[in-house]
Amino acid sequence: MSAAPAPSDARPLRIATNRRRADPARRVRDVLRGQILDGAFGDGALPYERDLSQKLGVTRNVVRDALDLLRREGLIERIPGAGTFVVAHKSSQGLDQLRGLAETFTGSEDWVVNQVLAAEITGAPAFVADRLGLGAGDPVVFIERLRHLRGQPLSLDASYLDASVAAGLLDEDLVANDVYVLLERELGLPLASAELSIEAVSADASTAALLGVVAGSPLLLLERLAMLDDGRPIDFEFVRYRGDRLSLTAHLDRSH
Amino acid sequence: MSAAPAPSDARPLRIATNRRRADPARRVRDVLRGQILDGAFGDGALPYERDLSQKLGVTRNVVRDALDLLRREGLIERIPGAGTFVVAHKSSQGLDQLRGLAETFTGSEDWVVNQVLAAEITGAPAFVADRLGLGAGDPVVFIERLRHLRGQPLSLDASYLDASVAAGLLDEDLVANDVYVLLERELGLPLASAELSIEAVSADASTAALLGVVAGSPLLLLERLAMLDDGRPIDFEFVRYRGDRLSLTAHLDRSH
Repeated sequence: MSAAPAPSDARPLRIATNRRRADPARRVRDVLRGQILDGAFGDGALPYERDLSQKLGVTRNVVRDALDLLRREGLIERIPGAGTFVVAHKSSQGLDQLRGLAETFTGSEDWVVNQVLAAEITGAPAFVADRLGLGAGDPVVFIERLRHLRGQPLSLDASYLDASVAAGLLDEDLVANDVYVLLERELGLPLASAELSIEAVSADASTAALLGVVAGSPLLLLERLAMLDDGRPIDFEFVRYRGDRLSLTAHLDRSH
Repeated sequence: MSAAPAPSDARPLRIATNRRRADPARRVRDVLRGQILDGAFGDGALPYERDLSQKLGVTRNVVRDALDLLRREGLIERIPGAGTFVVAHKSSQGLDQLRGLAETFTGSEDWVVNQVLAAEITGAPAFVADRLGLGAGDPVVFIERLRHLRGQPLSLDASYLDASVAAGLLDEDLVANDVYVLLERELGLPLASAELSIEAVSADASTAALLGVVAGSPLLLLERLAMLDDGRPIDFEFVRYRGDRLSLTAHLDRSH
């Protein structure tokens, strides 16, 4: 990119405040990464290194370093004698509205199936009770599910729900349905909103084994508290998504 | 938690659909994790294992496994002979509004300082040009900065801006200011909104070195396209936050 012609109205460049220069491979990585996730490479094959080098105005070494970063991230694979191919398929879920996973991915090719690891009534730990507006030790429904999208593991979800209103969930089909949908349709508990926090964390060994990734892989962690329309908190959950399979999208306004 | 008394109205438990049981250490980890991030442990010291075991109704082995997960995540440290201490300090930024980092953290203890790694005019790669509504090779301002909050590295930000309107940024103080604030206050370009995507990725070696983490550490990656009030895209950026230092928060409505 440094080979691009300077615009006629270019101002004198500000000298960077120290000598540590931006790494051009990082820039090229970001650009190729965006194209890959946009699905810009038709049959999944990336152009040759020399073509990328020419197109991006950087040396072949920089292209090679950028491709190496993308390979380590699991987005591409190099097949000797054949080329470099896109192997990542990232789905995206909008933060515009509170939706369950199966509600988000409803296309005929986007089926969601859940493996139920736990579904039981237990006593609420103090921290969970506090979020749900209960007393420590009060009965809560605990549900842990490994969720698959298109037959591939996507997330590990653990939910705590006030058992005094949600115990009926244990009689429902947790393999095929979102908890939100079951609460509304089967238990007659309309949801109004949720508060969530989003973090990036490493997969611990047991979570990694369930999700089919190497321990230490990056995960998106959502902590989400859903409220009923009367304001009562009903569902406190921890969702760990495979970082290579999901992105969240949002629209922000500057002021409101 | 399985030792908690069953509620009087407990229903017969649904048998999990396979034999792989939820790992109780994962549950306890989530609960302690939430308390740590909430700042529940006054002077930073966690209770003794036997007290946690009693309080949470699980064996000491489960508590030990959960603490081990939290130590690997970098949230706590065990100091032999002294106890287990909280070492994480996670800041949170709301997704309710488009704000720069320095606008978000404005308290007297929350100063933001940026180390400028690159600030120059270059040719837009096709993918970047496309997002900014420019032609490939058109001049863009490229700014890469390592951003520090309270003297600690927080994020590595790379921005591309349409040079025909934003070249003046290169004359401004990029060490102390948010790009958004400079665009509005110094260049008279009011921002209206942004589209963003949020991912969890691993730190590559050079990003890790800049951010002061081990290569492979989890990062929150934001790709964000900011628009002017006339709808024109102006700033396309990639922000990589240290996963152990930042969480994003949001409020979602069920329908709107």
